[in-house]
Amino acid sequence: MKQVYFTAGPAEMYPTFEQHLRTAVENQLGSISHRSQKFRDIYKFTVEQLRTLMNIPESHAIFFTGSASEVWERILLNCVEHESFHLVNGSFSKKFYEYGVSLRKFAHKQEKPFGEGFDYGEVEVPEYAEVICVTQNETSSGVQMREPDIHKLKRSNSKKLIAVDMVSSAPYPELDFGVIDTAFFSVQKAFGLPAGLGVWIANDKCLTKSERLNKYDDITIGAHHNLPSLWKNFKTYETPATPNVLGIYLLGKIAEDLNAIGADVVRKQTEEKYKVLTKYVETSNVFSPAVAEERHRSRTVVVANTSKLSAEVIAEVKKANMVVGSGYGPFKDSQIRIANFPAVSLEQVELLIEELKKLEN
Amino acid sequence: MKQVYFTAGPAEMYPTFEQHLRTAVENQLGSISHRSQKFRDIYKFTVEQLRTLMNIPESHAIFFTGSASEVWERILLNCVEHESFHLVNGSFSKKFYEYGVSLRKFAHKQEKPFGEGFDYGEVEVPEYAEVICVTQNETSSGVQMREPDIHKLKRSNSKKLIAVDMVSSAPYPELDFGVIDTAFFSVQKAFGLPAGLGVWIANDKCLTKSERLNKYDDITIGAHHNLPSLWKNFKTYETPATPNVLGIYLLGKIAEDLNAIGADVVRKQTEEKYKVLTKYVETSNVFSPAVAEERHRSRTVVVANTSKLSAEVIAEVKKANMVVGSGYGPFKDSQIRIANFPAVSLEQVELLIEELKKLEN
Repeated sequence: MKQVYFTAGPAEMYPTFEQHLRTAVENQLGSISHRSQKFRDIYKFTVEQLRTLMNIPESHAIFFTGSASEVWERILLNCVEHESFHLVNGSFSKKFYEYGVSLRKFAHKQEKPFGEGFDYGEVEVPEYAEVICVTQNETSSGVQMREPDIHKLKRSNSKKLIAVDMVSSAPYPELDFGVIDTAFFSVQKAFGLPAGLGVWIANDKCLTKSERLNKYDDITIGAHHNLPSLWKNFKTYETPATPNVLGIYLLGKIAEDLNAIGADVVRKQTEEKYKVLTKYVETSNVFSPAVAEERHRSRTVVVANTSKLSAEVIAEVKKANMVVGSGYGPFKDSQIRIANFPAVSLEQVELLIEELKKLEN
Repeated sequence: MKQVYFTAGPAEMYPTFEQHLRTAVENQLGSISHRSQKFRDIYKFTVEQLRTLMNIPESHAIFFTGSASEVWERILLNCVEHESFHLVNGSFSKKFYEYGVSLRKFAHKQEKPFGEGFDYGEVEVPEYAEVICVTQNETSSGVQMREPDIHKLKRSNSKKLIAVDMVSSAPYPELDFGVIDTAFFSVQKAFGLPAGLGVWIANDKCLTKSERLNKYDDITIGAHHNLPSLWKNFKTYETPATPNVLGIYLLGKIAEDLNAIGADVVRKQTEEKYKVLTKYVETSNVFSPAVAEERHRSRTVVVANTSKLSAEVIAEVKKANMVVGSGYGPFKDSQIRIANFPAVSLEQVELLIEELKKLEN
């Protein structure tokens, strides 16, 4: 019996995934050369669909990596000479910071307790930080930073670069890429695809910085997937090394499907499902919102405190062939996480709520 | 009409690929958590099948990356403090060397003209080199270094680490992992799978080295996919970041299929097809072997000089729905490359030769 995955990634496959995969297999896309015109057409198509869906201008190139976690490392290697600055509001933003430490950068952080988010006004950016690293959507805590706050943060620090982790929210956030220098996501979240592909969006300011750093003898921008080599290849829709061709094709097709619905409609559907889920969690006698401030609540990963063990909740909905996630790290038992991605419909969300209600009595 | 891909990777899909992919989709493996028992079982299964197929002992861990090119970088970051040494006999071994330069290591190289290979006796290892980097099978030039020569090289430099690039030959080479410290390959070559997964085999000596380097403030072993984090997660068959779950599953299943045939039989079949191909190339009046010395000829990537333009050859066999590769880089027009992977049968190789013969007259 098929399960419906409300997990925050890997997540439910997008409804058209199987059909696109069949087409890919029929067309033998696993065998084509990544130096062929066929591949260049696929790369170009995926880029065009993403530009439309997420309003990404020509100033920004779009690259593919093995995962979004890899992009944390690539941004720090390519865009930071000495100092990075990280807004930490959960386990993944913390990992981004820790990557900075591991790469021997002087990584600064401003940290919030688990479940709390940042507003623009309270952020204090260190003077010499070269890149501001923001996690727009924290998959661990279900906390978001709103787009206008992110844009203000960059505008008031216009000489610094800003990097936005939108791993588990893209394409939902309306980022203004006239302002945002670099952002990234992975495909196993809101795009409803199997894991194995990270997507990195970066502008020419990031490239310029990496080219400058690359001239120094005592610093490395990395050898694999560094910006100058990615960018050079991107100009002809190629990649420095053999990429996940199948994943790139599938991403383009899902983006096309989302464009057919329309980015705004997809966004409204997400908000509608979010409201239904949040309303239930707020009025339940088993669950309560894990993020106190409504403005800081992620629209795509709803996290709830649970008075019953998360394992019990997971087991209950499993009976109806639904899968929800436990809390993250220390909150494994006391929280549940419900992904609100385009792959799950309002009807499925309502069915999930019916199951969750069975725990109340 | 389906093509038969004799290209050196991406290559022909292994005959059972579609069936395993269907099973994976039916079991919703794209949606399962990489922290679930289901995933740990998949990782464990794939490791066990690879251990059997390639005779990899328990002293070596097996990790997954985005590609084999990524492993070049990871080995240099984790195992080299100051100096690496590279045997360069083609474009990919040269890239391995260039990765060392980009990572600001003191990278030494010993280089051969394109189409020539190394024997043990002629290799001069620099005194302070920490890792000897050998490309067992050069995808660009069709040159191999024989396993006994590689083993001797390590035995006479026992205090250094040895890293073996077997990207386009694994699981064919009979490497003695009692001697070899680390090796790696990608799945879109001889395993007949779509690209997007690199496989990294490394022993505890590599781990010890990376742990030592990680203690220094002025050196980085990388933040993403560094050995200590990969190894820690490997102990419970997990990965530091979300991996290509589907790719890992498929690799395990193809390895199981190859084990059912038997590694020795697969090897013999490879040698048989190699002999048929080589005999044709040697006696043809259009083609001739690109690698003069028989002992240096790759068994899995046969490269031939062509007196007709490679584009003409490619177009001719294309009529019969077969795809062969052009030469690499400067040899694009004057050479062709024919992959001899397990996914293509002796019958298919013979049909290819029939088509190639049509160019002779």
